[in-house]
Amino acid sequence: MPVISLTTDFGIKDGFTGVLKGVIWGICPGAQIADITHSIAPQNVFEGAMALYRAVPFFPMGTIHLAVVDPGVGTKRRPMAAKIGGNYFVGPDNGLFTPMIAEAEANKQEAVFVHLDNPAYWLADVSHTFHGRDIFAPAAAHLACGVELDALGSRFYDAVQIHLPRPEPTETGWEAHVTVIDTYGNITTDLKNEQLRGRRDVRFCLREREITGLVDSYGWRDKGELVALVDSEGYIEIALVNGSAAELLGAQVGDLVSVTL
Amino acid sequence: MPVISLTTDFGIKDGFTGVLKGVIWGICPGAQIADITHSIAPQNVFEGAMALYRAVPFFPMGTIHLAVVDPGVGTKRRPMAAKIGGNYFVGPDNGLFTPMIAEAEANKQEAVFVHLDNPAYWLADVSHTFHGRDIFAPAAAHLACGVELDALGSRFYDAVQIHLPRPEPTETGWEAHVTVIDTYGNITTDLKNEQLRGRRDVRFCLREREITGLVDSYGWRDKGELVALVDSEGYIEIALVNGSAAELLGAQVGDLVSVTL
Amino acid sequence: MPVISLTTDFGIKDGFTGVLKGVIWGICPGAQIADITHSIAPQNVFEGAMALYRAVPFFPMGTIHLAVVDPGVGTKRRPMAAKIGGNYFVGPDNGLFTPMIAEAEANKQEAVFVHLDNPAYWLADVSHTFHGRDIFAPAAAHLACGVELDALGSRFYDAVQIHLPRPEPTETGWEAHVTVIDTYGNITTDLKNEQLRGRRDVRFCLREREITGLVDSYGWRDKGELVALVDSEGYIEIALVNGSAAELLGAQVGDLVSVTL
Repeated sequence: MPVISLTTDFGIKDGFTGVLKGVIWGICPGAQIADITHSIAPQNVFEGAMALYRAVPFFPMGTIHLAVVDPGVGTKRRPMAAKIGGNYFVGPDNGLFTPMIAEAEANKQEAVFVHLDNPAYWLADVSHTFHGRDIFAPAAAHLACGVELDALGSRFYDAVQIHLPRPEPTETGWEAHVTVIDTYGNITTDLKNEQLRGRRDVRFCLREREITGLVDSYGWRDKGELVALVDSEGYIEIALVNGSAAELLGAQVGDLVSVTL
Repeated sequence: MPVISLTTDFGIKDGFTGVLKGVIWGICPGAQIADITHSIAPQNVFEGAMALYRAVPFFPMGTIHLAVVDPGVGTKRRPMAAKIGGNYFVGPDNGLFTPMIAEAEANKQEAVFVHLDNPAYWLADVSHTFHGRDIFAPAAAHLACGVELDALGSRFYDAVQIHLPRPEPTETGWEAHVTVIDTYGNITTDLKNEQLRGRRDVRFCLREREITGLVDSYGWRDKGELVALVDSEGYIEIALVNGSAAELLGAQVGDLVSVTL
Repeated sequence: MPVISLTTDFGIKDGFTGVLKGVIWGICPGAQIADITHSIAPQNVFEGAMALYRAVPFFPMGTIHLAVVDPGVGTKRRPMAAKIGGNYFVGPDNGLFTPMIAEAEANKQEAVFVHLDNPAYWLADVSHTFHGRDIFAPAAAHLACGVELDALGSRFYDAVQIHLPRPEPTETGWEAHVTVIDTYGNITTDLKNEQLRGRRDVRFCLREREITGLVDSYGWRDKGELVALVDSEGYIEIALVNGSAAELLGAQVGDLVSVTL
């Protein structure tokens, strides 16, 4: 049976995430459920998209990724499910799945989108404010138990996409952007290691601090030193050995990182 | 095999919740376990009762709800298990299950209470301070693997109940109470939508701020606006579009909400 | 199938813990996974070791404990797996498993250590910064699905161990140490109840506050009173009834507790 993953901005205080599991197991007993994160900043669709994008490659092919960051719940935004590059995605049609769609397009992989408009696969009572529970969890559970994607609703072709930053080439290298700040305060950018063309003697400038050269891992420098390295997904990351680079620099998602080759 | 849910004030820092799962799987391998929440404010039995009450309807019938908010651990308060309206509840007899008992009474459903006084179903060594691990998790695990409720101990009939707020009728409408403040800062009350008798042109007053009328969902008003709506369980809720109403108003559980029809 | 437990300093914000589960289920579908904690203070190997040590006895024999607190990731520290006293441990060779090794030695139980140097049991691409995902989770999953420990790499005999505090005898009793402060602010020490030789009229002194005598549990004294008791694992604990003793006393891990018999 496929795995279901959960990515939300529900937090862990209120029991909303437990309710998703209750609903899923009521429909598809035995489904295996992994929390990716429930700590997306409330209503921050970009942050949710990035968290999901970084996790997807490490789940088994065919996993059903249920994601709910949903400022438009109860309005006209579509509830959707999709099959993108062999995996399933269920959630609001508000851009949350943009990086996976972009990647499938780049790799010429198939992407199929379905509007969850078949009430046979909803809970009996649908609220205006908790579609995660009433529409998305049931859809994910039905998919896990073998219902076809197309049974859940009608196809559509214009999925909402959000702006994703991309590094811009400059005369001396790149202008990159901070995309993720993790729990350690490590700062990830949108610059892929390949874009450095094998160079390691690179200069990074973020919030008026310079970092020179790439190290292999944190432990190769002394505690308290700022370093640049290739993160575990192949992107350039700025880190503070045994500390929080984000706190030291006051860095935020969206900050520019100038890269001189 | 039935699902076991967990609701505690253990927090997630110390490994106590993992220990519950270790104990359960030692007794009943294969049991499926869903965390509802471990972030109940320490020793806040009312908050635990409300979190559980809101989650229970969305779990499969027959689920075993293990709940531990237990300021009286190691004193004379009884450890208990119960079957209420088709679901099982295991935890301290201190009022944690009051809303489920009240609802079963209102619906004339059966409720059976058992004092967990049969040591055959405890861990071999029982501490004075961690009955969640030593008595409640084993009881839940044995129930999940098919042990009869009555095998776990002797029946009793005077389960402790706590005071639950109820909206009071006034000359012009209702005096309601704040019952839950969620992670988004949404403010839930004890007033059921039915108690507005179909009216939508209602005036709510909370912490000297007025909110007029009901909206269908958050997204129908502009960011930063205070709104009233029916929450996903049918109760009246005060919210701030894309923000925290509780923070804006300084609202707390127990606050009065005056409702003018 | 054996249980896999997870203990890390990953936090719950970033999806790293979900990724571990995705990797495990990609290799060993159906493995049961319990989070012990992901809230170890970043890079605090001692705190991770204590959290794991307190949880291990309550998991079924044969559980695979995956633990990652790994300041040296990507340097020369060995990735390791071990079988200690009937349970399995997978993680960095940096002292994280010291208490279990010490206990096995004390009890003359077998301990076998393997360097995870067989790339056949890693993910295809191994990063420099996320061995939890690329080496440790795969090793745990392969063990859960029946791969022999020795298949994962070559034996070694000099596992890194960290200093563990032990109570020192004094002329009038013991000098003990604070080892754990839990989410409630309860303060656990390294002094075992047996070391009081049955005495209950004992005087404890911590941060210049005296506590006299042992109580059975929190609820036997009034709210706001400092008490000493035997914690649920047999160690002496200082607590504040319905409050945080650690906050009241400003206590920290490593503080001295003088004990007068």
